[in-house]
Amino acid sequence: MSSQSKTNNQVLLPVPREWCTKEGRSPIAAFVNFVHPVSDALLNHIDALCFSHTIQKGKLLLKAGDICHHLYFVRKGVFRGFVKEGSKEITTWITAENEIIASIRGIEHQLPSIENIQAIEDSELVGGSFEQLQFLYDNYPEMNIVSRKLLSQYYADAEERAFISRLTKANSRYNHFMSTKGQLVNRIPLKYIASYLGMTLETLSRTRSKIR
Amino acid sequence: MSSQSKTNNQVLLPVPREWCTKEGRSPIAAFVNFVHPVSDALLNHIDALCFSHTIQKGKLLLKAGDICHHLYFVRKGVFRGFVKEGSKEITTWITAENEIIASIRGIEHQLPSIENIQAIEDSELVGGSFEQLQFLYDNYPEMNIVSRKLLSQYYADAEERAFISRLTKANSRYNHFMSTKGQLVNRIPLKYIASYLGMTLETLSRTRSKIR
Repeated sequence: MSSQSKTNNQVLLPVPREWCTKEGRSPIAAFVNFVHPVSDALLNHIDALCFSHTIQKGKLLLKAGDICHHLYFVRKGVFRGFVKEGSKEITTWITAENEIIASIRGIEHQLPSIENIQAIEDSELVGGSFEQLQFLYDNYPEMNIVSRKLLSQYYADAEERAFISRLTKANSRYNHFMSTKGQLVNRIPLKYIASYLGMTLETLSRTRSKIR
Repeated sequence: MSSQSKTNNQVLLPVPREWCTKEGRSPIAAFVNFVHPVSDALLNHIDALCFSHTIQKGKLLLKAGDICHHLYFVRKGVFRGFVKEGSKEITTWITAENEIIASIRGIEHQLPSIENIQAIEDSELVGGSFEQLQFLYDNYPEMNIVSRKLLSQYYADAEERAFISRLTKANSRYNHFMSTKGQLVNRIPLKYIASYLGMTLETLSRTRSKIR
């Protein structure tokens, strides 16, 4: 995230040893190997390239209009994506530990982001740059398998988000949310959940009371 | 799509010569090479494996609950994905020529589809099976690059669908539709567009009149 790096003077810090596995792997290398087992050479390369980043609750990791140059593995914390419609914020996704976050439009083409990415808890991230990722694609063909598998999962998740928001009944939308993100419900302000589910805070509260 | 193949006695027909490029490539091989240039060996293999399929307007290519065993390149026609909420059909995506269609949940894990896929025009498809695709992944590493690039595009598109349906203003949703799918507006029944945009047919008509 160049403009963010500039404004925040973000320094690329090494990944603390206490974040790593007992074999000394960074959390992002361990995650890659979990998605699709790869060679030690690739894992060593990922370990050498990645950096750590912490961000406070409420701060933006990425601002709409900026180009996202990095992707991040969430070691700890919760994030949301949101877009602005006039002065209104619309939450489009919510995610937490053990997922990759980045501007979706940055992944392949480095286009300006349409979404903002915000930490909704104090969070710890392990990052890498898309430029380095391209180097890994070119030099370790297996890295393409990892991304293919991950993208097909993230594509299915995005499709679910497109589907859930089109359900007409508030309780269908809320139940679907609880079945997929229920474990996060106490970590996310209700106003963000309401916005994600395309309903007012009042409708969300009423729906929750009825279901209880 | 095994159950569909069984019920329809779908016969896997060769791709007609008149559908192919002047070099004799099938439309799906030509599409793969457009996404990411690959070896002739891989293109020949794709040409040898693919089949043609035609489907009439209104017919289902895939029924919710079935496992989708094939993916299809749309040579001609328009398709929509829809899910049922009680007796109501909710259109979740609309696509036309030069795109790949399949049940998203079938891509990596062969899970039962949550969506129905319906032809909304008489259509022509070129298909292949996910089993064969896995063979190509295993034997032609470059096939993983093709899918990685394609999935990142489709992921961004699905995210847009998730985003558009959360916009609160009907005219924002309609304008966004026109800017991305405007060229299809006269080929899709308005009731499907209304459902895709999460509004009633009356709201859609009113929005269209106002914008005109």
